Amino acid sequence: GERVITAGVGCDPLPSWNDGPTKQAIMDFVARVTAEDSPDFVPVEERIATFDNDGTLWVEQPLYVQGIFVFDQVRALAPEHPEWQERQPYKAVLENDTAALASLSEEQIADMVLTVHAGTEQEEFIGAAREWLAEARHPRYNTSYTRLVYRPMLELMDYLRSNGFRVFIVSGGGVDFVRAFSEETYGVPRENVVGSSLEYEYGADGRLTRLAKLSKYDDAGGKPESIALHIGRRPIFVAGNSDGDLAMMRYAATGSRPYLNLLVHHEDARREYAYDRESHVGRLREALDEARALGWPVISMSQDWKRIFDDGTI
Amino acid sequence: GERVITAGVGCDPLPSWNDGPTKQAIMDFVARVTAEDSPDFVPVEERIATFDNDGTLWVEQPLYVQGIFVFDQVRALAPEHPEWQERQPYKAVLENDTAALASLSEEQIADMVLTVHAGTEQEEFIGAAREWLAEARHPRYNTSYTRLVYRPMLELMDYLRSNGFRVFIVSGGGVDFVRAFSEETYGVPRENVVGSSLEYEYGADGRLTRLAKLSKYDDAGGKPESIALHIGRRPIFVAGNSDGDLAMMRYAATGSRPYLNLLVHHEDARREYAYDRESHVGRLREALDEARALGWPVISMSQDWKRIFDDGTI
Ligand SMILES: [Ca+2]
Ligand SMILES: [Ca+2]
Repeated sequence: GERVITAGVGCDPLPSWNDGPTKQAIMDFVARVTAEDSPDFVPVEERIATFDNDGTLWVEQPLYVQGIFVFDQVRALAPEHPEWQERQPYKAVLENDTAALASLSEEQIADMVLTVHAGTEQEEFIGAAREWLAEARHPRYNTSYTRLVYRPMLELMDYLRSNGFRVFIVSGGGVDFVRAFSEETYGVPRENVVGSSLEYEYGADGRLTRLAKLSKYDDAGGKPESIALHIGRRPIFVAGNSDGDLAMMRYAATGSRPYLNLLVHHEDARREYAYDRESHVGRLREALDEARALGWPVISMSQDWKRIFDDGTI
Repeated sequence: GERVITAGVGCDPLPSWNDGPTKQAIMDFVARVTAEDSPDFVPVEERIATFDNDGTLWVEQPLYVQGIFVFDQVRALAPEHPEWQERQPYKAVLENDTAALASLSEEQIADMVLTVHAGTEQEEFIGAAREWLAEARHPRYNTSYTRLVYRPMLELMDYLRSNGFRVFIVSGGGVDFVRAFSEETYGVPRENVVGSSLEYEYGADGRLTRLAKLSKYDDAGGKPESIALHIGRRPIFVAGNSDGDLAMMRYAATGSRPYLNLLVHHEDARREYAYDRESHVGRLREALDEARALGWPVISMSQDWKRIFDDGTI
């Protein structure tokens, strides 16, 4: 299922992007690394692009989508777990205490993920995530989360692929959760998704079960580590939106090849959300300073994007 | 780097295979899963094929190729490690005690791998492996190891790819060692190689270093576990040659899709080697019995293959 987006009028491969320095930086980079007579030419096998997911490819406010999924699973499993009524963080979920939920630590969320996502087989888990995604609606936009993917970024992924890049998602979210929609939504096959993972355990019956044990937390330094293991090559194009992406950007920057690090800056409260340095979700502080200091392009959602979402309404 | 092999006379996609039940089983399976009107049709995104490497795609006798590489590295590093002169297993390597080397345990080899392969960056390690592969010669055939890949299996990988399969290598060997030659030799890009791995450690300078710590031993049950993590889908085609491949074969067999498990049986002492139940390298006992009991095709190298190696001489 490679997703194909028909480009807009003329030959503009990025029709949802306003003309300006960000779009220009992207197109200049692609031209430089693909022209065979360019001093910056990069052979096709080395054209690796890695994209963060939450906040880079789809909306992550008011909460990470996988977090909302986990909360719904906690509610569904609650009748079998009466002890959750009085135990945090489950209590906050069951009482829909939004203030408490918004301030959960990543460890608390990870604990819940391990509890409710373990014990299943891979296809079973991916199927459950797909069912949930088909029904769930975003509280502000009242539409599916998979329609709240950023249209300009879909165009960018297609543009890179059509220039010989292999596009990977490298997410702090759970690898199998992202795989539940990556093919249909992004045209990224499951094997091109890298993310946080639980341990799998093989049984002699041929069954493979997800254990309640974290295998890899794929954020910050974990991202380049996972890239080395999974992809085997330093990316030359990295897109992200938070400090959790800075390590993979530095990894691209310290290679011997030309590279482009691209940062999504959410400063469009009217159409989407505005958050950066103090945000609980998708905090962007150090990476923003480093991008500005080093001249990495920073996407201004309000200025650079004609439209935001793939659903076409905004 | 996609490798293209010109098919032989007519339209036979497997010209180095003799006609017979094994070749027929492969072609029947591919026809069944790719015909849209077949009850066994498998959508293209689910056509995942996984190949073991040592003994399935290239020669593994008299010793695993990576083992020979490690021994050569031990010899090169010996002047910096005088203590190795009296310590096993290094002593056996330095004295070229072939009897002792042939009986090293996998743990002893793994220990040496950790010692000599750690501390480098990924590109540096892959570069060292490539340099070694360019120079090293097989003791019996006196040619490069990368020319001692099985020509019939190269044709098989091409045939599967031309029928919409994505082809992966799932090796008990080190993932970065296999990546050093997978693209040029097999047409398998680095990101489609799964294997045993050391831990990577990210440093704030953007450098990523291989640690002397095993991350995953990708053999037996580790193979389906790695497939779930890396590929995210159960394979429908598995090729292997030893008991270490049985778990991934059972994993394919317990899915809901049609599948083909294919076993390479080395019984051609004249052109290659003959070994199975009692072999130290590539032991094949349980998987051979299970393949025969369940009707999985078993490749007889002497009967099924017109020629063995890609170098064309044998
Ligand atoms: Ca993010
Ligand atoms: Ca093998």
